[in-house]
Amino acid sequence: MDSHAVTKTDYKSYTGAFTLLHLTHLQPVQVSHLSFTSTHGALPEGPHGSGKSPTAIVMLNMGGPSTVSETHDFLKNLFLDNDLIPLPFQSIIAPLIARRRTPKIEQQYTDIGGGSPILRYTQLQGERMAAILDELHPSTAPHKSYVAFRYAKPLTDATAQQLKADGVTRAVAFTQYPQYSCSTTGSSLNELYRKGKTGAFGDGVEWSVIDRWGTHPGFIEAVAQNIERALAKFPESTRADAVLLFSAHSLPMSVVNRGDPYVLEVSATVAAVMERLKHTNPYRLVWQSQVGPSAWMGMQTGEALKGLARLGRKQVVLVPIAFTSDHIETLYELDLEYAREAREHGMDVHRAESLNESPVFIRALADMASAHLKDITTGKSGPTSIQMALRCPGCTNATCGQQKTWFARGGR
Amino acid sequence: MDSHAVTKTDYKSYTGAFTLLHLTHLQPVQVSHLSFTSTHGALPEGPHGSGKSPTAIVMLNMGGPSTVSETHDFLKNLFLDNDLIPLPFQSIIAPLIARRRTPKIEQQYTDIGGGSPILRYTQLQGERMAAILDELHPSTAPHKSYVAFRYAKPLTDATAQQLKADGVTRAVAFTQYPQYSCSTTGSSLNELYRKGKTGAFGDGVEWSVIDRWGTHPGFIEAVAQNIERALAKFPESTRADAVLLFSAHSLPMSVVNRGDPYVLEVSATVAAVMERLKHTNPYRLVWQSQVGPSAWMGMQTGEALKGLARLGRKQVVLVPIAFTSDHIETLYELDLEYAREAREHGMDVHRAESLNESPVFIRALADMASAHLKDITTGKSGPTSIQMALRCPGCTNATCGQQKTWFARGGR
Repeated sequence: MDSHAVTKTDYKSYTGAFTLLHLTHLQPVQVSHLSFTSTHGALPEGPHGSGKSPTAIVMLNMGGPSTVSETHDFLKNLFLDNDLIPLPFQSIIAPLIARRRTPKIEQQYTDIGGGSPILRYTQLQGERMAAILDELHPSTAPHKSYVAFRYAKPLTDATAQQLKADGVTRAVAFTQYPQYSCSTTGSSLNELYRKGKTGAFGDGVEWSVIDRWGTHPGFIEAVAQNIERALAKFPESTRADAVLLFSAHSLPMSVVNRGDPYVLEVSATVAAVMERLKHTNPYRLVWQSQVGPSAWMGMQTGEALKGLARLGRKQVVLVPIAFTSDHIETLYELDLEYAREAREHGMDVHRAESLNESPVFIRALADMASAHLKDITTGKSGPTSIQMALRCPGCTNATCGQQKTWFARGGR
Repeated sequence: MDSHAVTKTDYKSYTGAFTLLHLTHLQPVQVSHLSFTSTHGALPEGPHGSGKSPTAIVMLNMGGPSTVSETHDFLKNLFLDNDLIPLPFQSIIAPLIARRRTPKIEQQYTDIGGGSPILRYTQLQGERMAAILDELHPSTAPHKSYVAFRYAKPLTDATAQQLKADGVTRAVAFTQYPQYSCSTTGSSLNELYRKGKTGAFGDGVEWSVIDRWGTHPGFIEAVAQNIERALAKFPESTRADAVLLFSAHSLPMSVVNRGDPYVLEVSATVAAVMERLKHTNPYRLVWQSQVGPSAWMGMQTGEALKGLARLGRKQVVLVPIAFTSDHIETLYELDLEYAREAREHGMDVHRAESLNESPVFIRALADMASAHLKDITTGKSGPTSIQMALRCPGCTNATCGQQKTWFARGGR
C-alpha cells in the first residue's frame, strides 16, 4: 500500500487506447513451456533497438498447472513450501499429501478446461504492462516482463536463467498478489532471495520490490467496473437489493495470529471498492478455500451464500478480490461449486469477472511500476517499502528477516 | 462507512475556532447522575429561543461506571446482554459472573482515578457537536445531544424519559463506535428498538440512524494528528523506525465467523490513517481485551508488543483505533498493563491520545450529523444506510431483523 504513488491517470475513463499503437508489434502470447517470458522487449530486437539489457519486471504469483498432468508437481511444490505450511518431516510428508490429493484436483482442472489460465494471463498482463511502461518511464526502458511462479512452471530457477541469459542488471520483483501475506508474497520473496544469494540471476543484479498495492486507484477502478458489469445483469428494479459478496482466499488463524497483514489489506481493498461504488449495494467480505481441520479466517464463502439464501437475500454478485486473473478458485470453486449450490437454494448469482485482460488493470500495473522506478531513481524511496521492512511480531522464520535485509540492500 | 458524505471541511487546518463563539454560553458539563443530557439547546432557553422541540442526537456507546461503586451494575448489565454474549440461563448466570469479576474490575477503575471518563467526554463531544450543528444545518435546529449507554448510566430508559420530557419528535441514533459490530452498535440499536416500540421515547418520534463512519476524513485526520504528536516524542533521528501499533477491542471468532463487519471496518480505518500519514512508519493492527477461553480475533496486543521487543523493534506508538474517548481499555490496559510490560522489555512506548476533546474530531461529528440530516431532508437517503439493512449471513438473532425493519421505517 505504500509502494504506489497516486498517479494522474483517469482510470474511470481509461479505455486502453493509449497502448493500442504500442501493442501492434507484439507476438502472440507464448504458452509453450519453453518460452515463459514475454516477447516484448526481447533482445536484441526490442522496440528501442538499443541492445541495452532490459529492466526486468518479475511478476510473482503462486501459479497453477497449465495442463492437467502438471497438477501433481504443482501440489508437491506447494506442500513442500515451508514458508506456507511448516510440516514435520516435510520432505517426506509433502509428496505423500500431494499424491493423495492429485486425483481430485486433476479432476477440477479437467472440469475448468484442462488447466489453469494463470500463466497465459500473467504473461499477457506483463507484456502489455511493459509496453506501456516503456512510454511512461523511458529512462529505464526497455522493460521486459518475466514470470516467476512459486509452485508451477515457470519456477524461479527457470526465470533466473532467463534473466541471466538476457544480461539483466536491474530487476523489480513485482508481486501479483494485491495484498501482502507472508504465505503468498512473503514466500515468493523468500524464494527469490534464496536463489538470488546463490547468484542464480547472474552477478550484481540490482533488485527492488513492489510488495503490495491493494488500494491502488487503478486496481480499485478495474474491480469496480467488473462489479458494475455483473450488477447490470440483474433487473433494474431489483438491482439495488443485490448483495456484493467479496471473496478472498482464507488464511489459517495461526498465520493471522502472528500478525500477518493480509486480512487488513484485503479489507482495505474492499472498503476502497465500496467507496468507489458509492455504496450502492450492501456487501460482506468472506473467505474461501479453507482446507484441513485447523481454524481459518471466516466467514466462509459457502456458508455465507447459504446464510444469505436463508435470510431471503437471493441476488448476489460474487467478487474475487485477492487474485488478478482466473484460476481454480474462481473457475471451479466459485463458478462450479458455489454457484451451483446457490442455484439449488434458488439464488440468482453472478460473478464479477476476474481482471484477466482488463486494460484499466494493466494500465494500473504500468503506473505502479513507473511510479516505483521513478521514486527509486529520484531517491524518494529505497528498494523496499517501509512497511515491508517490518516482520510480523510473531514471526519465527529466520529467512523472512534475511530476505528483508537482502532486498533492502538492493539484493546484496 | 456509507452514512457520511465527503464534506468540504479542511480538517487538516481546522482549529475549532469556528465553534468558540458558539460555546461561550454553555454551562459546565454536568456529571451528576440526575442530569445526563447536555445543557446546550435546553428548552425553552435554547440558542434559537424558538420553543421548538429539539432534534435529538442520541450518542450511543457502551459506557462505563462513572464511579467505582457502579462497577457491579455495569458488569451485570454487560453479562445480561444477550446480543453481546448469549449465555444459557443468562438471567441467573450473568449476576454470578458479574459478582465474581467485580473486585478485580473495581480495582482497575480505582487505579485509573476512580471511574471511567467516558460519560464526561461523550457529553462534552455531544454538546460541542450540537452547537456546531446548529450552524451547519439550521433547518433542523435546535439540536440537542443525549447520551444512551448500553451498560452504564444513563441507560436507554433514562434517556428515553429525557426525550419524552423535551417533546422530541425527530431523533438521530448516532453510534459513537466508528466501526460497526453487531456486538456494539448492533446491540445498542436493538436496545433502542426494544424501548422505542413500547413508546418509551414518546409517540411518533421519527428516527434515523448514523450507523458507521470508520473512514470519515475528519475522524481519520483527528486520529492521524494524535499519532503525529506521539511520534514527535521520539528523537528525530530514530523516529522513522517507530512501529505504529493500532489496537482495537477484539471480537470472538464466533462473531467474526457469522459475518460481522467489524474486522473489515477497523482495518479500513487503519488503512485510511496510514494513507493520510503517507506511510511514514511501519504498522500493524492488533487486538486487545480478549476474555475467556474461546478463540478471539488476533494477533493480541500484548503478544505483539512482546514479539516486537524480541525482533528488536523497541520504539512503538500504541494507537487506540476503535474508541472515541479514554476508557478502561486505554487508561488501564494500554497505559498501565501493556506499557509497563513493554518497559520491562526495554521498549520505548508512547500512546497516541484518545480523541477526547479533539476539536477536529468534534467538528467531524457535526459534519457527519449535518450531512446525514441533509441527505434525509433532500430525499437522497433513507433513515438507515444501505449497508445497515443487510443482516450478517450467519445471524440467527430475530431482534436484529426486526430492529433493521423498524429503523428503516423511521422507527415505526
